[in-house]
Amino acid sequence: MCKACNYTIHGAQHHFGWDNANAPALRAEPGSTILFHCHDSSAGQLGPSSTVADVTALDFGRINPVSGPIFVEGAAPGDALKVTIESFAPQAFDGAGFGWTANIPGFGLLADQFPDPALHVWKFDPRTMEPALWGSMGRVPLKPFAGTIGCAPADPGLHSVVPPRRVGGNLDIRDLSAGTTLYLPVEVAGGLFSVGDTHAAQGDGEVCGTAIESPMDVVLTLDLVKGANLKTPRFTTPGPVTRHIDAMGYEATTGIGPDLMTGARDAVAAMVDLLCARHGMSAVDAYMLVSTCGDLRISEIVDMPNWVVSFYVPRSVLE
Amino acid sequence: MCKACNYTIHGAQHHFGWDNANAPALRAEPGSTILFHCHDSSAGQLGPSSTVADVTALDFGRINPVSGPIFVEGAAPGDALKVTIESFAPQAFDGAGFGWTANIPGFGLLADQFPDPALHVWKFDPRTMEPALWGSMGRVPLKPFAGTIGCAPADPGLHSVVPPRRVGGNLDIRDLSAGTTLYLPVEVAGGLFSVGDTHAAQGDGEVCGTAIESPMDVVLTLDLVKGANLKTPRFTTPGPVTRHIDAMGYEATTGIGPDLMTGARDAVAAMVDLLCARHGMSAVDAYMLVSTCGDLRISEIVDMPNWVVSFYVPRSVLE
Repeated sequence: MCKACNYTIHGAQHHFGWDNANAPALRAEPGSTILFHCHDSSAGQLGPSSTVADVTALDFGRINPVSGPIFVEGAAPGDALKVTIESFAPQAFDGAGFGWTANIPGFGLLADQFPDPALHVWKFDPRTMEPALWGSMGRVPLKPFAGTIGCAPADPGLHSVVPPRRVGGNLDIRDLSAGTTLYLPVEVAGGLFSVGDTHAAQGDGEVCGTAIESPMDVVLTLDLVKGANLKTPRFTTPGPVTRHIDAMGYEATTGIGPDLMTGARDAVAAMVDLLCARHGMSAVDAYMLVSTCGDLRISEIVDMPNWVVSFYVPRSVLE
Repeated sequence: MCKACNYTIHGAQHHFGWDNANAPALRAEPGSTILFHCHDSSAGQLGPSSTVADVTALDFGRINPVSGPIFVEGAAPGDALKVTIESFAPQAFDGAGFGWTANIPGFGLLADQFPDPALHVWKFDPRTMEPALWGSMGRVPLKPFAGTIGCAPADPGLHSVVPPRRVGGNLDIRDLSAGTTLYLPVEVAGGLFSVGDTHAAQGDGEVCGTAIESPMDVVLTLDLVKGANLKTPRFTTPGPVTRHIDAMGYEATTGIGPDLMTGARDAVAAMVDLLCARHGMSAVDAYMLVSTCGDLRISEIVDMPNWVVSFYVPRSVLE
């Protein structure tokens, strides 16, 4: 429940994929504050008692539902939708917060190296939001955000929810958390805004393809900037973005060469090797753990012809 | 001067490019602490009173000298050189610290958009290391590091200093600052370690191609990890890496699409546009300023076929 909200969008008011012919779930004035009940990215196919067999059985036609769409009155192509991200409340299951991280075959930065399905189920306290534990291996501070947040594209027809676009969508930007203001290009009348794919924690890159996937209630305020003419989304964070996790510094690995994708893959593979050697983790466990907390950064992109991609894993998670 | 140092490498003991036939400037036992006097990346061609004409006149045959090489006794291919980064002391000119940031035609992430040379000369207090001012436009906190730090490659002959390699070199990783431990693959007997290209500040990416280029004295301890068999460099930071600059949060722009390089270019171009519109800066000034403080991050690299690169500029620099 949200006392300051003007509207509520229930979990049943969701859609799969983006289509500007979808009927609005709500028409709202600019400045409206809205509570969205969001499913997790499996649309409930995975739950607190799921096993790896449930990953194999996933119906990909029901992946990543988003709640909406909202027709914002007056929004027109060329405007920006100003989304003030107010709060996140994980949905409780028997009083506990729940999330999952999976290696889904064919999906993820190192999909060729990790062909088999794997699943880790997380439990956490949704009131205290204390770090979530991966057995004795890892301790991941939580910082919820919406992985998928965007407007409908102008291009007619149904578009997959998987790739993000200039109108937003599956951006998976881990700093789209409480307090951040996001500006999204509007391509159709009303914008047709939707949100979902809530994550309890993720590192920059979401390298294994999933974060701590967790159903949440999200409160957002939707407003307009007329004639903003943004090319791509931009956002403003209200303060530091890593202080919940950086106190002990980082372990970092690198990939060096003329292709940023190869560099990113090399850096992540080197980190998986390091965690296996040092902490005795299985490779797929290390790969899934660092997806929830490790950051891919481009250290240099100018020293021709070789670029450096670094993968930073917070030591507080490991030690 | 360094009281705890075992050796000093003077600025005259430098070389241009990497060549494993270079005679060692010093043979040192593992565990030695060494003071390196380092030139700036222009080898003194640019100074506190330089103008943009001096950028045009740069002799690229004298770019990026590195001080060394050090033959570390016992280092052999397959070992890692463990470099403990102890301290940086900017060299003073008439009592002032000095640095330069340039747009060098043909060099930099947006070289096609910025064909003309440009130069900004910074002054700062080398004792207090207070943030360096870009007029009333920007205030950049300083965090010195060595842009070029590495060993000689096994491949014989002279190799350009510009691209980094698996043995390190022009890594331009801005967190190779005081307190960090860097591990470098060794490819030749003794490692033949050198360091230079000191920077007073840089963002992840070094997007315009230069940082705050500043001559400094660097103290390092060189040690060995026998048989480490690293594929690429890795490093450990002793604590948080952005607390000197992140207190007010970030402005961030994005690039979205199937190519990470294009995404990075789009994100940086969008930030330049934002700073021009909001702060009245010239485009090339904005481009050079954000090179010293803005971070390129890979927000997601798994949502096929479109990746998100975000460019984060600290609001404390701008506000």
